[in-house]
Amino acid sequence: MGKTVRAHANIALIKYWGKKDERLRLPLMSSLSMTLDRFYTDTKITESDLNHFYLNGIEQIGQSSQRVFTYLKFLQDKFGVSGNLAVRSTNHVPTAAGLASSSSAFAALAGAFCSHYGFEIEPKELSRLARMGSGSACRSVFGGFVLWQKGEDDTTSYAYALNEKPEMDLQLLAIELNPKPKKLSSTEGMKQATSSPFFKPWLQRNQTELDQMITAIQNNDFTALGQLAELNANEMHAINLTAQPGFTYFEPQTIAAINLVRHLRETGIECYYTIDAGPNVKVITRLKNVKEITNQFVSQFDNVKIVNASFGPGLSYLD
Amino acid sequence: MGKTVRAHANIALIKYWGKKDERLRLPLMSSLSMTLDRFYTDTKITESDLNHFYLNGIEQIGQSSQRVFTYLKFLQDKFGVSGNLAVRSTNHVPTAAGLASSSSAFAALAGAFCSHYGFEIEPKELSRLARMGSGSACRSVFGGFVLWQKGEDDTTSYAYALNEKPEMDLQLLAIELNPKPKKLSSTEGMKQATSSPFFKPWLQRNQTELDQMITAIQNNDFTALGQLAELNANEMHAINLTAQPGFTYFEPQTIAAINLVRHLRETGIECYYTIDAGPNVKVITRLKNVKEITNQFVSQFDNVKIVNASFGPGLSYLD
Repeated sequence: MGKTVRAHANIALIKYWGKKDERLRLPLMSSLSMTLDRFYTDTKITESDLNHFYLNGIEQIGQSSQRVFTYLKFLQDKFGVSGNLAVRSTNHVPTAAGLASSSSAFAALAGAFCSHYGFEIEPKELSRLARMGSGSACRSVFGGFVLWQKGEDDTTSYAYALNEKPEMDLQLLAIELNPKPKKLSSTEGMKQATSSPFFKPWLQRNQTELDQMITAIQNNDFTALGQLAELNANEMHAINLTAQPGFTYFEPQTIAAINLVRHLRETGIECYYTIDAGPNVKVITRLKNVKEITNQFVSQFDNVKIVNASFGPGLSYLD
Repeated sequence: MGKTVRAHANIALIKYWGKKDERLRLPLMSSLSMTLDRFYTDTKITESDLNHFYLNGIEQIGQSSQRVFTYLKFLQDKFGVSGNLAVRSTNHVPTAAGLASSSSAFAALAGAFCSHYGFEIEPKELSRLARMGSGSACRSVFGGFVLWQKGEDDTTSYAYALNEKPEMDLQLLAIELNPKPKKLSSTEGMKQATSSPFFKPWLQRNQTELDQMITAIQNNDFTALGQLAELNANEMHAINLTAQPGFTYFEPQTIAAINLVRHLRETGIECYYTIDAGPNVKVITRLKNVKEITNQFVSQFDNVKIVNASFGPGLSYLD
């Protein structure tokens, strides 16, 4: 009988923002992430009369369940198995902080699928399977710092751990400023982004940025890591702003948060931001600064929710 | 005796954002502007016992007067004249809408200097002189659509009119969202911007963007003009965001204004934005949409001030 599989969400420090092949979810660039301890998904798959998908105990219908079943059907066809399945997932997300991402969901799903059918596959192969569910999920198979090499095709596009248990003093504050759902999905945003005149120059920088980030990790250089993560996120949002037509995930509070991070940095509190396909910011800092930064955000924003995370592990099997 | 000289402010549709030579104010790119009827500066120069600079009737001391006197001394040296001068300027700016720019100020100053000494010089030469006071001032010598060709040196870097009296149905709404002075001067911002990885790709697009804008003007194509002006402004702000270190002139209300412009456009009200080195936005639209756009901004922003401008003339001599 299959086990409950736990996968942690990850946050990209070098972003995945553009697909080379939509069906295979092959990316245009390699990306680099940290897996987060505080955000994870537990998923168990069992046989069932009909397909069912329960999230946090509630049966899901419509789009979100369709995407799950489509993915499971793909896996079944790939492995030559069949039958209806019941999927039970629990998202462990301290708040609705916009980090209940598809990364942990599809990594856990891929793991639970293999566990249910008793397929024993290498983490690298599991990463490839997870990628087919959601690109960033391929990174959530591993813990610590993770690199998703873009590869050339389905076989060569997968993630691997750069450092499963980093010793870096690095804390991530997931700051929920704005609970509104994003207006433009990642899939749509990525598509539109490639029309930016700066998209190609950005792609050409990908290997350099990766190399610099790997060096920062190897040297335990928090400052270099933070500066580069912030630059890379700014590049992604600059790409969106200059797409044709241009768009932005920023909301007014995003700018206020960016300006607060800069202000804190100017006053000697070392911190950097990264921003994904939404209005919220994630702040990267040192353990000693977590309290002060939290206080500053709480005092300057209404209804802000903050979750403090650090490095999380790779896929694990419970029960 | 010198005449009072009137110069109108201009707004760049293809931005000047980077200097090749700081002293000579030679730009790294050519730029294209429209001169605005509602914002102008009147300046008269007379002999005086000591140097004096009166702005709107109030004697100025410190930095703003220093810049004026330094510029006048440069002009005196160039023309081999001397003596102390009294400068009387009046800024005609309907509100403090951030458009009392140095463009009209230094164009009027250059004109008033030549008028005071009785120098009769060609508009092209006056444009070069104005450029030495403030880069964008070289465009304010002319009316309508104006092109500042970057040139190679002091002699070849000047502006000229593309179309002094355009027939295009084009209105500009200068929207003051945020009266705070900008944190980073244009001079400093430009310097920092060149460190963006996208700066060089942007420069490489300059001639293409100019050509496209000239074609839009020639074809009386408001849509093409608006789209390109918005893209070019987004590029400038994307450059700033990705500078090392990154920075932004955007304030929370800037994003709200951008989002409102996009929303209006989606509802069929054709309008575009451009943004300079500050948090305020300028909306470009058709005459028929001015009232609706104004109402929308007034209803969605507190204390917003809006000035509606269209094409202004080149330098003129009063008295």
